[in-house]
Amino acid sequence: MWGIIGTWEMALQGIKKSSSLLENGNTADIAIIEAIKDVEDNPNFTSVGYGGLPNENGEVELDAAFMDGNNLSFGAVAGIKNFNNPITIAKALSKDRFNIFLVGKGAESYAEKNGFEKKNMLTLKSKEAWEKRIKDIKEKNLSPYDGHDTVGMVCLDKYGNITAGTSTSGLFMKKEGRVGDSPMPGSGLYVDSKIGGATATGLGEDIMKGCISYEAVRLMEEGYTPQEAVNIITEKFNKKLIDRRGTAGAFSIVCMNKEGKWGVGTNVEFPFVVSTELEGTKVYVANFKDNKIVYKPLI
Amino acid sequence: MWGIIGTWEMALQGIKKSSSLLENGNTADIAIIEAIKDVEDNPNFTSVGYGGLPNENGEVELDAAFMDGNNLSFGAVAGIKNFNNPITIAKALSKDRFNIFLVGKGAESYAEKNGFEKKNMLTLKSKEAWEKRIKDIKEKNLSPYDGHDTVGMVCLDKYGNITAGTSTSGLFMKKEGRVGDSPMPGSGLYVDSKIGGATATGLGEDIMKGCISYEAVRLMEEGYTPQEAVNIITEKFNKKLIDRRGTAGAFSIVCMNKEGKWGVGTNVEFPFVVSTELEGTKVYVANFKDNKIVYKPLI
Repeated sequence: MWGIIGTWEMALQGIKKSSSLLENGNTADIAIIEAIKDVEDNPNFTSVGYGGLPNENGEVELDAAFMDGNNLSFGAVAGIKNFNNPITIAKALSKDRFNIFLVGKGAESYAEKNGFEKKNMLTLKSKEAWEKRIKDIKEKNLSPYDGHDTVGMVCLDKYGNITAGTSTSGLFMKKEGRVGDSPMPGSGLYVDSKIGGATATGLGEDIMKGCISYEAVRLMEEGYTPQEAVNIITEKFNKKLIDRRGTAGAFSIVCMNKEGKWGVGTNVEFPFVVSTELEGTKVYVANFKDNKIVYKPLI
Repeated sequence: MWGIIGTWEMALQGIKKSSSLLENGNTADIAIIEAIKDVEDNPNFTSVGYGGLPNENGEVELDAAFMDGNNLSFGAVAGIKNFNNPITIAKALSKDRFNIFLVGKGAESYAEKNGFEKKNMLTLKSKEAWEKRIKDIKEKNLSPYDGHDTVGMVCLDKYGNITAGTSTSGLFMKKEGRVGDSPMPGSGLYVDSKIGGATATGLGEDIMKGCISYEAVRLMEEGYTPQEAVNIITEKFNKKLIDRRGTAGAFSIVCMNKEGKWGVGTNVEFPFVVSTELEGTKVYVANFKDNKIVYKPLI
Protein backbone atom coordinates (compact mmCIF):
# COMPACT_ATOMS: atom_id res chain seq x y z
CA MET A 1 0.00 0.00 0.00
CA TRP A 2 1.16 3.51 -0.82
CA GLY A 3 -0.57 6.82 -0.09
CA ILE A 4 -0.07 10.56 0.12
CA ILE A 5 -2.21 13.25 1.75
CA GLY A 6 -1.76 17.00 1.48
CA THR A 7 -3.29 20.23 2.75
CA TRP A 8 -5.32 22.54 0.45
CA GLU A 9 -6.39 22.06 -3.14
CA MET A 10 -3.05 23.44 -4.35
CA ALA A 11 -1.53 20.06 -3.41
CA LEU A 12 -3.43 18.33 -6.25
CA GLN A 13 -0.97 18.44 -9.14
CA GLY A 14 1.99 17.59 -6.93
CA ILE A 15 0.14 14.68 -5.38
CA LYS A 16 -0.84 13.37 -8.82
CA LYS A 17 2.81 13.42 -9.88
CA SER A 18 3.94 11.74 -6.69
CA SER A 19 1.22 9.09 -6.89
CA SER A 20 2.79 7.93 -10.14
CA LEU A 21 6.20 7.93 -8.52
CA LEU A 22 4.91 5.88 -5.58
CA GLU A 23 3.02 3.50 -7.87
CA ASN A 24 6.26 2.97 -9.79
CA GLY A 25 8.13 2.02 -6.65
CA ASN A 26 9.81 5.28 -5.71
CA THR A 27 10.36 5.91 -2.00
CA ALA A 28 8.46 8.28 0.27
CA ASP A 29 11.42 10.63 0.76
CA ILE A 30 11.66 11.27 -2.98
CA ALA A 31 7.93 11.36 -3.68
CA ILE A 32 7.09 13.90 -1.00
CA ILE A 33 9.79 16.30 -2.15
CA GLU A 34 8.54 16.16 -5.74
CA ALA A 35 4.98 16.85 -4.61
CA ILE A 36 5.96 19.81 -2.43
CA LYS A 37 8.32 21.21 -5.08
CA ASP A 38 5.38 21.27 -7.48
CA VAL A 39 3.49 23.55 -5.10
CA GLU A 40 6.55 25.69 -4.37
CA ASP A 41 7.20 26.17 -8.10
CA ASN A 42 3.70 27.35 -8.97
CA PRO A 43 3.50 31.17 -8.87
CA ASN A 44 -0.31 31.00 -8.65
CA PHE A 45 -0.09 29.61 -5.12
CA THR A 46 0.62 32.74 -3.10
CA SER A 47 1.26 31.10 0.26
CA VAL A 48 4.14 28.77 -0.64
CA GLY A 49 7.50 29.11 -2.39
CA TYR A 50 7.82 31.10 -5.63
CA GLY A 51 5.13 33.75 -5.67
CA GLY A 52 4.56 33.50 -1.91
CA LEU A 53 3.19 36.67 -0.35
CA PRO A 54 5.81 38.86 1.29
CA ASN A 55 6.34 40.08 4.84
CA GLU A 56 5.67 43.64 6.04
CA ASN A 57 8.85 44.82 4.31
CA GLY A 58 7.83 43.36 0.96
CA GLU A 59 10.33 40.49 1.23
CA VAL A 60 9.43 36.83 0.66
CA GLU A 61 10.70 34.83 3.64
CA LEU A 62 10.08 31.11 3.44
CA ASP A 63 9.88 28.23 5.94
CA ALA A 64 10.06 24.51 5.19
CA ALA A 65 10.64 21.27 7.04
CA PHE A 66 11.16 17.61 6.26
CA MET A 67 10.95 14.60 8.58
CA ASP A 68 11.84 10.98 7.91
CA GLY A 69 9.71 8.55 9.91
CA ASN A 70 12.25 5.74 9.86
CA ASN A 71 14.97 7.44 11.88
CA LEU A 72 13.10 10.58 13.04
CA SER A 73 15.64 12.65 11.09
CA PHE A 74 14.43 16.21 10.83
CA GLY A 75 15.59 19.27 8.92
CA ALA A 76 14.16 22.77 8.58
CA VAL A 77 14.78 26.28 7.34
CA ALA A 78 12.91 29.38 8.46
CA GLY A 79 12.94 32.97 7.26
CA ILE A 80 15.05 32.07 4.23
CA LYS A 81 15.12 34.56 1.34
CA ASN A 82 16.09 34.26 -2.31
CA PHE A 83 16.49 30.50 -2.58
CA ASN A 84 14.37 28.21 -4.66
CA ASN A 85 12.62 25.13 -3.24
CA PRO A 86 13.19 25.48 0.50
CA ILE A 87 11.84 21.92 0.99
CA THR A 88 14.97 20.57 -0.73
CA ILE A 89 17.19 22.53 1.66
CA ALA A 90 15.22 21.22 4.65
CA LYS A 91 15.66 17.68 3.37
CA ALA A 92 19.40 18.14 2.94
CA LEU A 93 19.67 19.42 6.53
CA SER A 94 17.83 16.36 7.84
CA LYS A 95 20.83 14.23 6.89
CA ASP A 96 23.00 15.94 9.48
CA ARG A 97 23.37 15.23 13.18
CA PHE A 98 24.01 18.86 14.19
CA ASN A 99 22.70 22.19 12.85
CA ILE A 100 19.55 20.75 11.32
CA PHE A 101 17.36 23.82 11.84
CA LEU A 102 18.75 26.99 10.28
CA VAL A 103 17.14 30.42 10.16
CA GLY A 104 17.62 33.66 8.24
CA LYS A 105 21.06 34.55 6.96
CA GLY A 106 22.51 31.32 8.33
CA ALA A 107 20.06 29.27 6.27
CA GLU A 108 21.03 31.31 3.21
CA SER A 109 24.78 30.79 3.84
CA TYR A 110 24.18 27.04 4.10
CA ALA A 111 22.11 26.99 0.90
CA GLU A 112 24.72 29.00 -0.97
CA LYS A 113 27.63 26.84 0.22
CA ASN A 114 25.75 23.70 -0.73
CA GLY A 115 24.88 24.81 -4.24
CA PHE A 116 21.14 25.38 -3.92
CA GLU A 117 19.61 27.60 -6.61
CA LYS A 118 19.36 31.31 -5.83
CA LYS A 119 16.14 32.88 -7.02
CA ASN A 120 14.12 36.01 -6.41
CA MET A 121 10.95 34.44 -5.04
CA LEU A 122 8.81 37.60 -5.32
CA THR A 123 6.54 37.66 -8.38
CA LEU A 124 4.97 40.80 -9.82
CA LYS A 125 1.54 39.48 -8.79
CA SER A 126 2.63 39.05 -5.15
CA LYS A 127 4.33 42.44 -5.14
CA GLU A 128 1.10 44.03 -6.34
CA ALA A 129 -0.92 42.16 -3.70
CA TRP A 130 1.47 43.54 -1.08
CA GLU A 131 1.15 47.11 -2.42
CA LYS A 132 -2.63 46.82 -2.43
CA ARG A 133 -2.64 45.46 1.12
CA ILE A 134 -0.46 48.31 2.37
CA LYS A 135 -2.94 50.74 0.80
CA ASP A 136 -5.96 48.89 2.27
CA ILE A 137 -4.44 48.80 5.73
CA LYS A 138 -3.99 52.58 5.63
CA GLU A 139 -7.28 53.46 3.96
CA LYS A 140 -9.63 50.81 5.33
CA ASN A 141 -7.91 50.24 8.66
CA LEU A 142 -7.72 46.50 7.95
CA SER A 143 -5.76 44.12 10.14
CA PRO A 144 -2.52 43.48 8.28
CA TYR A 145 -2.43 39.73 8.85
CA ASP A 146 -4.18 37.41 6.51
CA GLY A 147 -3.66 34.05 4.85
CA HIS A 148 -1.52 31.22 6.11
CA ASP A 149 -2.00 28.25 3.82
CA THR A 150 0.95 25.97 4.39
CA VAL A 151 1.33 23.00 2.12
CA GLY A 152 1.91 20.00 4.35
CA MET A 153 2.04 16.38 3.29
CA VAL A 154 2.42 12.89 4.69
CA CYS A 155 3.64 10.21 2.31
CA LEU A 156 3.72 6.41 2.64
CA ASP A 157 5.52 4.23 0.10
CA LYS A 158 5.12 0.54 -0.81
CA TYR A 159 7.96 -0.42 1.51
CA GLY A 160 6.42 1.15 4.61
CA ASN A 161 8.62 4.26 4.77
CA ILE A 162 6.69 7.36 5.84
CA THR A 163 7.81 10.97 5.47
CA ALA A 164 6.29 14.36 6.25
CA GLY A 165 7.05 17.81 4.86
CA THR A 166 5.83 21.40 4.98
CA SER A 167 6.50 24.57 3.01
CA THR A 168 5.09 28.06 3.42
CA SER A 169 5.63 31.77 3.02
CA GLY A 170 3.86 32.16 6.34
CA LEU A 171 1.43 34.84 7.38
CA PHE A 172 0.93 37.52 4.69
CA MET A 173 2.39 40.84 5.98
CA LYS A 174 4.13 39.02 8.82
CA LYS A 175 6.84 40.84 10.72
CA GLU A 176 10.35 40.28 9.43
CA GLY A 177 11.71 37.02 10.86
CA ARG A 178 8.30 35.69 11.96
CA VAL A 179 8.16 31.91 12.07
CA GLY A 180 4.97 29.90 12.47
CA ASP A 181 4.33 26.28 13.28
CA SER A 182 5.19 24.87 9.84
CA PRO A 183 8.89 24.17 10.44
CA MET A 184 8.41 23.07 14.05
CA PRO A 185 8.55 19.36 14.77
CA GLY A 186 5.44 18.24 16.64
CA SER A 187 3.49 21.35 15.67
CA GLY A 188 3.68 21.65 11.87
CA LEU A 189 4.55 18.01 11.22
CA TYR A 190 5.53 14.75 12.85
CA VAL A 191 6.04 11.25 11.53
CA ASP A 192 7.08 7.81 12.73
CA SER A 193 7.15 5.02 10.12
CA LYS A 194 6.08 2.47 12.73
CA ILE A 195 2.86 4.44 13.27
CA GLY A 196 2.06 7.19 10.76
CA GLY A 197 2.44 10.92 10.21
CA ALA A 198 0.54 14.20 10.50
CA THR A 199 0.84 17.79 9.34
CA ALA A 200 -1.00 20.97 10.26
CA THR A 201 -1.89 24.31 8.67
CA GLY A 202 -3.63 27.43 9.92
CA LEU A 203 -2.70 30.17 12.34
CA GLY A 204 0.77 29.00 13.37
CA GLU A 205 0.77 31.13 16.50
CA ASP A 206 -2.13 29.05 17.84
CA ILE A 207 -1.08 25.67 16.41
CA MET A 208 2.24 26.01 18.28
CA LYS A 209 0.32 25.99 21.55
CA GLY A 210 -0.82 22.40 21.09
CA CYS A 211 1.80 20.16 19.40
CA ILE A 212 -1.10 18.73 17.40
CA SER A 213 0.92 16.86 14.77
CA TYR A 214 2.83 15.00 17.47
CA GLU A 215 -0.43 14.34 19.28
CA ALA A 216 -2.05 12.84 16.17
CA VAL A 217 0.81 10.36 15.76
CA ARG A 218 0.73 9.54 19.46
CA LEU A 219 -3.00 8.83 19.39
CA MET A 220 -2.55 6.58 16.35
CA GLU A 221 0.14 4.76 18.33
CA GLU A 222 -2.40 4.25 21.12
CA GLY A 223 -4.63 2.45 18.62
CA TYR A 224 -6.97 5.16 17.41
CA THR A 225 -7.74 5.26 13.70
CA PRO A 226 -6.38 8.35 11.93
CA GLN A 227 -9.86 9.89 11.82
CA GLU A 228 -10.52 9.14 15.50
CA ALA A 229 -7.15 10.71 16.38
CA VAL A 230 -7.88 13.99 14.61
CA ASN A 231 -11.47 14.04 15.86
CA ILE A 232 -10.15 13.96 19.42
CA ILE A 233 -7.53 16.63 18.70
CA THR A 234 -9.86 18.99 16.88
CA GLU A 235 -12.57 18.94 19.53
CA LYS A 236 -10.18 19.13 22.47
CA PHE A 237 -7.76 21.71 21.08
CA ASN A 238 -10.47 23.99 19.67
CA LYS A 239 -12.24 23.96 23.02
CA LYS A 240 -9.00 24.52 24.92
CA LEU A 241 -8.09 27.57 22.84
CA ILE A 242 -11.56 29.07 23.33
CA ASP A 243 -11.61 28.28 27.07
CA ARG A 244 -8.18 29.72 27.71
CA ARG A 245 -7.96 32.51 25.15
CA GLY A 246 -11.54 33.38 24.26
CA THR A 247 -10.90 32.53 20.61
CA ALA A 248 -9.37 29.78 18.49
CA GLY A 249 -7.36 30.56 15.37
CA ALA A 250 -8.00 28.49 12.26
CA PHE A 251 -6.29 25.12 12.29
CA SER A 252 -6.49 22.04 10.09
CA ILE A 253 -4.64 18.76 10.26
CA VAL A 254 -4.29 15.73 7.99
CA CYS A 255 -2.76 12.41 8.93
CA MET A 256 -2.09 8.98 7.48
CA ASN A 257 -1.11 5.75 9.21
CA LYS A 258 1.22 2.98 8.04
CA GLU A 259 -1.68 1.17 6.37
CA GLY A 260 -2.57 4.16 4.20
CA LYS A 261 -5.68 4.97 6.25
CA TRP A 262 -6.09 8.71 6.71
CA GLY A 263 -7.94 11.35 8.68
CA VAL A 264 -8.75 15.06 8.54
CA GLY A 265 -9.45 17.52 11.34
CA THR A 266 -10.28 21.22 11.04
CA ASN A 267 -12.14 24.05 12.73
CA VAL A 268 -12.76 25.89 9.40
CA GLU A 269 -13.67 25.03 5.82
CA PHE A 270 -10.66 23.12 4.58
CA PRO A 271 -9.97 21.45 1.22
CA PHE A 272 -7.36 18.71 1.06
CA VAL A 273 -6.08 16.07 -1.35
CA VAL A 274 -5.56 12.33 -0.84
CA SER A 275 -4.23 9.69 -3.13
CA THR A 276 -3.84 6.03 -2.20
CA GLU A 277 -3.28 2.81 -4.08
CA LEU A 278 -6.89 1.77 -3.47
CA GLU A 279 -8.77 5.07 -3.70
CA GLY A 280 -7.05 6.98 -6.50
CA THR A 281 -6.62 10.75 -6.22
CA LYS A 282 -9.41 12.82 -4.71
CA VAL A 283 -9.97 16.36 -3.51
CA TYR A 284 -12.21 16.71 -0.47
CA VAL A 285 -13.49 19.63 1.51
CA ALA A 286 -13.84 19.33 5.27
CA ASN A 287 -15.85 21.43 7.69
CA PHE A 288 -16.40 21.67 11.43
CA LYS A 289 -20.14 21.70 12.21
CA ASP A 290 -21.78 21.23 15.61
CA ASN A 291 -18.37 20.31 17.01
CA LYS A 292 -17.99 17.46 14.47
CA ILE A 293 -15.80 17.13 11.40
CA VAL A 294 -17.61 16.41 8.14
CA TYR A 295 -16.07 16.08 4.71
CA LYS A 296 -17.14 15.27 1.17
CA PRO A 297 -15.55 15.08 -2.26
CA LEU A 298 -15.11 18.48 -3.89
CA ILE A 299 -16.84 18.33 -7.28
CA MET B 1 2.23 26.24 47.49
CA TRP B 2 4.91 27.83 45.31
CA GLY B 3 7.88 26.20 43.59
CA ILE B 4 10.49 26.64 40.92
CA ILE B 5 12.74 24.10 39.20
CA GLY B 6 15.63 24.83 36.84
CA THR B 7 18.20 23.01 34.73
CA TRP B 8 21.91 22.96 35.72
CA GLU B 9 23.64 24.30 38.79
CA MET B 10 23.90 27.74 37.16
CA ALA B 11 20.19 28.18 37.95
CA LEU B 12 20.93 28.34 41.71
CA GLN B 13 21.31 32.07 42.34
CA GLY B 14 18.41 32.98 40.10
CA ILE B 15 16.19 30.42 41.76
CA LYS B 16 17.16 31.71 45.21
CA LYS B 17 16.16 35.23 44.18
CA SER B 18 12.91 34.06 42.67
CA SER B 19 12.05 31.93 45.68
CA SER B 20 12.00 35.10 47.74
CA LEU B 21 9.84 36.77 45.13
CA LEU B 22 7.41 33.85 45.15
CA GLU B 23 7.39 33.66 48.95
CA ASN B 24 6.51 37.35 49.00
CA GLY B 25 3.53 36.83 46.73
CA ASN B 26 4.95 37.74 43.33
CA THR B 27 3.51 35.91 40.32
CA ALA B 28 5.11 33.15 38.29
CA ASP B 29 5.50 35.28 35.15
CA ILE B 30 7.61 37.81 37.04
CA ALA B 31 9.57 35.31 39.15
CA ILE B 32 10.67 33.13 36.25
CA ILE B 33 11.95 36.09 34.25
CA GLU B 34 14.03 37.32 37.21
CA ALA B 35 15.51 33.85 37.70
CA ILE B 36 16.43 33.43 34.03
CA LYS B 37 17.78 36.99 33.76
CA ASP B 38 20.14 36.17 36.61
CA VAL B 39 21.61 33.32 34.56
CA GLU B 40 21.70 35.40 31.37
CA ASP B 41 23.52 38.23 33.13
CA ASN B 42 26.30 36.09 34.58
CA PRO B 43 29.32 36.06 32.25
CA ASN B 44 30.67 32.94 33.98
CA PHE B 45 27.85 30.86 32.48
CA THR B 46 29.08 30.32 28.95
CA SER B 47 25.99 28.67 27.51
CA VAL B 48 23.39 31.36 28.20
CA GLY B 49 23.06 35.11 27.57
CA TYR B 50 25.97 37.45 28.24
CA GLY B 51 29.20 35.51 27.87
CA GLY B 52 27.51 32.74 25.88
CA LEU B 53 29.84 30.84 23.57
CA PRO B 54 29.72 32.00 19.97
CA ASN B 55 28.81 30.30 16.71
CA GLU B 56 31.32 29.22 14.05
CA ASN B 57 31.73 32.84 12.95
CA GLY B 58 32.55 34.04 16.47
CA GLU B 59 29.14 35.67 16.93
CA VAL B 60 26.90 35.13 19.95
CA GLU B 61 23.44 34.17 18.70
CA LEU B 62 20.87 33.62 21.41
CA ASP B 63 17.55 31.76 21.68
CA ALA B 64 14.90 32.18 24.38
CA ALA B 65 11.26 31.33 24.94
CA PHE B 66 8.53 32.03 27.47
CA MET B 67 5.20 30.29 27.95
CA ASP B 68 2.28 31.21 30.21
CA GLY B 69 0.36 28.18 31.40
CA ASN B 70 -2.89 30.07 32.01
CA ASN B 71 -3.62 31.02 28.41
CA LEU B 72 -0.90 29.01 26.61
CA SER B 73 0.57 32.30 25.40
CA PHE B 74 3.98 31.70 23.91
CA GLY B 75 6.79 33.95 22.70
CA ALA B 76 10.27 33.21 21.42
CA VAL B 77 13.34 34.66 19.76
CA ALA B 78 16.03 32.66 17.99
CA GLY B 79 19.37 33.60 16.52
CA ILE B 80 19.21 37.09 18.03
CA LYS B 81 22.46 39.07 18.31
CA ASN B 82 23.50 42.07 20.35
CA PHE B 83 20.50 42.34 22.66
CA ASN B 84 20.56 41.85 26.41
CA ASN B 85 18.21 39.43 28.20
CA PRO B 86 16.51 37.60 25.34
CA ILE B 87 14.07 36.05 27.84
CA THR B 88 12.50 39.49 28.35
CA ILE B 89 12.02 39.87 24.58
CA ALA B 90 10.42 36.41 24.39
CA LYS B 91 8.06 37.35 27.19
CA ALA B 92 7.06 40.58 25.45
CA LEU B 93 6.31 38.65 22.25
CA SER B 94 4.08 36.23 24.16
CA LYS B 95 1.59 39.07 24.71
CA ASP B 96 0.83 39.25 20.99
CA ARG B 97 -1.59 37.21 18.91
CA PHE B 98 0.53 37.28 15.73
CA ASN B 99 4.30 37.26 15.11
CA ILE B 100 5.18 35.66 18.43
CA PHE B 101 8.26 33.76 17.21
CA LEU B 102 10.90 35.99 15.61
CA VAL B 103 14.30 34.97 14.30
CA GLY B 104 17.53 36.71 13.31
CA LYS B 105 17.39 40.24 11.99
CA GLY B 106 13.62 40.37 12.44
CA ALA B 107 13.99 39.64 16.15
CA GLU B 108 16.59 42.39 16.39
CA SER B 109 14.34 44.90 14.59
CA TYR B 110 11.53 44.09 17.01
CA ALA B 111 13.83 44.42 20.04
CA GLU B 112 15.17 47.75 18.79
CA LYS B 113 11.72 49.17 18.03
CA ASN B 114 10.48 48.11 21.44
CA GLY B 115 13.32 49.66 23.39
CA PHE B 116 15.19 46.56 24.55
CA GLU B 117 18.79 47.12 25.60
CA LYS B 118 21.45 46.65 22.92
CA LYS B 119 24.57 44.94 24.20
CA ASN B 120 27.58 43.14 22.80
CA MET B 121 27.04 39.72 24.36
CA LEU B 122 30.54 38.39 23.57
CA THR B 123 32.92 38.49 26.53
CA LEU B 124 36.69 38.31 26.23
CA LYS B 125 36.59 34.92 27.96
CA SER B 126 34.15 33.50 25.40
CA LYS B 127 36.09 35.01 22.53
CA GLU B 128 39.25 33.30 23.82
CA ALA B 129 37.40 29.98 24.20
CA TRP B 130 36.27 30.32 20.58
CA GLU B 131 39.80 31.08 19.37
CA LYS B 132 41.16 28.10 21.29
CA ARG B 133 38.47 25.83 19.88
CA ILE B 134 39.22 26.93 16.31
CA LYS B 135 42.88 26.09 16.95
CA ASP B 136 42.01 22.72 18.56
CA ILE B 137 39.72 21.76 15.69
CA LYS B 138 42.54 22.38 13.23
CA GLU B 139 45.37 20.87 15.24
CA LYS B 140 43.64 18.05 17.10
CA ASN B 141 40.94 17.30 14.55
CA LEU B 142 38.25 17.70 17.24
CA SER B 143 34.56 17.76 16.42
CA PRO B 144 33.59 21.40 16.50
CA TYR B 145 30.33 20.93 18.40
CA ASP B 146 30.32 20.88 22.14
CA GLY B 147 28.24 22.15 25.03
CA HIS B 148 24.53 22.88 24.98
CA ASP B 149 23.46 23.77 28.50
CA THR B 150 20.18 25.62 28.19
CA VAL B 151 18.75 27.15 31.29
CA GLY B 152 15.13 26.07 31.46
CA MET B 153 12.72 26.66 34.32
CA VAL B 154 9.19 25.90 35.41
CA CYS B 155 7.67 28.20 38.02
CA LEU B 156 4.51 27.87 40.13
CA ASP B 157 3.24 30.73 42.25
CA LYS B 158 0.93 30.79 45.30
CA TYR B 159 -2.06 31.55 43.11
CA GLY B 160 -1.65 28.49 40.87
CA ASN B 161 -0.19 30.29 37.85
CA ILE B 162 2.55 28.27 36.15
CA THR B 163 5.09 29.56 33.61
CA ALA B 164 8.01 28.06 31.74
CA GLY B 165 11.05 29.68 30.13
CA THR B 166 14.30 28.84 28.39
CA SER B 167 17.42 30.75 27.38
CA THR B 168 20.56 29.57 25.61
CA SER B 169 23.42 30.43 23.33
CA GLY B 170 22.96 27.00 21.78
CA LEU B 171 25.57 24.59 20.59
CA PHE B 172 29.12 26.00 20.88
CA MET B 173 30.51 26.54 17.35
CA LYS B 174 27.06 26.04 15.84
CA LYS B 175 26.49 27.09 12.26
CA GLU B 176 25.18 30.62 11.81
CA GLY B 177 21.42 30.62 12.30
CA ARG B 178 21.28 27.20 13.99
CA VAL B 179 18.31 26.82 16.32
CA GLY B 180 17.88 23.97 18.77
CA ASP B 181 14.93 22.78 20.79
CA SER B 182 15.04 25.51 23.44
CA PRO B 183 12.70 28.02 21.79
CA MET B 184 10.36 25.36 20.39
CA PRO B 185 7.06 24.81 22.17
CA GLY B 186 6.61 21.17 23.11
CA SER B 187 10.31 20.40 22.70
CA GLY B 188 12.23 22.91 24.84
CA LEU B 189 9.31 23.81 27.10
CA TYR B 190 5.59 23.41 27.64
CA VAL B 191 3.24 24.44 30.40
CA ASP B 192 -0.44 24.34 31.29
CA SER B 193 -1.46 25.87 34.63
CA LYS B 194 -4.22 23.27 35.05
CA ILE B 195 -1.58 20.52 34.98
CA GLY B 196 2.07 21.59 35.24
CA GLY B 197 5.09 22.41 33.12
CA ALA B 198 8.31 20.91 31.76
CA THR B 199 11.54 22.05 30.15
CA ALA B 200 14.37 20.19 28.44
CA THR B 201 18.10 20.66 27.82
CA GLY B 202 20.68 18.68 25.89
CA LEU B 203 21.33 18.05 22.21
CA GLY B 204 18.51 20.08 20.69
CA GLU B 205 18.72 18.25 17.38
CA ASP B 206 17.67 15.05 19.15
CA ILE B 207 15.24 16.57 21.66
CA MET B 208 13.27 18.04 18.72
CA LYS B 209 12.55 14.51 17.55
CA GLY B 210 10.41 13.72 20.59
CA CYS B 211 8.35 16.70 21.85
CA ILE B 212 9.36 15.59 25.33
CA SER B 213 8.27 18.71 27.23
CA TYR B 214 4.77 18.45 25.79
CA GLU B 215 4.78 14.73 26.54
CA ALA B 216 5.71 15.31 30.20
CA VAL B 217 2.76 17.67 30.67
CA ARG B 218 0.45 15.28 28.85
CA LEU B 219 1.47 12.36 31.08
CA MET B 220 0.92 14.48 34.19
CA GLU B 221 -2.55 15.28 32.81
CA GLU B 222 -3.18 11.53 32.54
CA GLY B 223 -2.51 11.25 36.25
CA TYR B 224 1.14 10.29 36.43
CA THR B 225 3.25 11.98 39.07
CA PRO B 226 5.93 14.30 37.66
CA GLN B 227 8.63 11.71 38.39
CA GLU B 228 6.63 8.89 36.81
CA ALA B 229 6.04 11.06 33.74
CA VAL B 230 9.73 11.75 33.16
CA ASN B 231 10.70 8.17 34.00
CA ILE B 232 8.44 7.00 31.17
CA ILE B 233 9.77 9.63 28.77
CA THR B 234 13.43 9.05 29.54
CA GLU B 235 13.30 5.28 29.14
CA LYS B 236 11.10 5.35 26.06
CA PHE B 237 12.76 8.24 24.23
CA ASN B 238 16.32 7.12 24.96
CA LYS B 239 15.49 3.65 23.66
CA LYS B 240 13.70 5.05 20.62
CA LEU B 241 16.67 7.21 19.62
CA ILE B 242 19.05 4.27 20.00
CA ASP B 243 16.73 1.88 18.13
CA ARG B 244 16.16 4.23 15.24
CA ARG B 245 19.44 6.14 15.05
CA GLY B 246 22.02 3.93 16.74
CA THR B 247 22.76 6.63 19.28
CA ALA B 248 20.95 9.01 21.63
CA GLY B 249 22.17 12.55 22.20
CA ALA B 250 22.24 13.86 25.75
CA PHE B 251 18.88 15.01 27.03
CA SER B 252 17.57 16.04 30.42
CA ILE B 253 14.15 17.22 31.49
CA VAL B 254 12.67 18.74 34.63
CA CYS B 255 8.99 19.20 35.38
CA MET B 256 6.70 20.43 38.12
CA ASN B 257 2.95 19.98 38.57
CA LYS B 258 0.37 22.39 39.96
CA GLU B 259 0.91 21.05 43.48
CA GLY B 260 4.63 21.85 43.41
CA LYS B 261 5.61 18.18 43.04
CA TRP B 262 8.51 17.76 40.63
CA GLY B 263 10.43 15.23 38.60
CA VAL B 264 13.74 14.87 36.77
CA GLY B 265 14.67 12.73 33.79
CA THR B 266 18.04 12.44 32.08
CA ASN B 267 20.27 10.09 30.11
CA VAL B 268 23.48 11.76 31.38
CA GLU B 269 24.85 13.22 34.62
CA PHE B 270 22.67 16.24 35.19
CA PRO B 271 22.64 18.76 38.05
CA PHE B 272 19.47 20.77 38.63
CA VAL B 273 17.99 23.12 41.21
CA VAL B 274 14.62 23.03 42.96
CA SER B 275 13.03 25.35 45.43
CA THR B 276 9.59 24.89 46.92
CA GLU B 277 7.70 26.33 49.86
CA LEU B 278 8.10 23.06 51.79
CA GLU B 279 11.56 21.88 50.76
CA GLY B 280 13.63 25.07 50.54
CA THR B 281 16.29 25.44 47.85
CA LYS B 282 18.38 22.41 46.91
CA VAL B 283 20.82 21.41 44.21
CA TYR B 284 20.61 17.80 43.08
CA VAL B 285 22.52 15.73 40.61
CA ALA B 286 20.69 13.12 38.56
CA ASN B 287 22.06 10.15 36.64
CA PHE B 288 20.75 7.43 34.37
CA LYS B 289 21.96 4.02 35.59
CA ASP B 290 20.70 0.60 34.46
CA ASN B 291 17.93 2.35 32.57
CA LYS B 292 16.73 4.09 35.77
CA ILE B 293 16.96 7.68 36.92
CA VAL B 294 18.64 8.24 40.27
CA TYR B 295 19.32 11.55 41.95
CA LYS B 296 20.76 12.85 45.17
CA PRO B 297 21.55 16.21 46.77
CA LEU B 298 24.80 17.73 45.51
CA ILE B 299 26.95 18.42 48.55
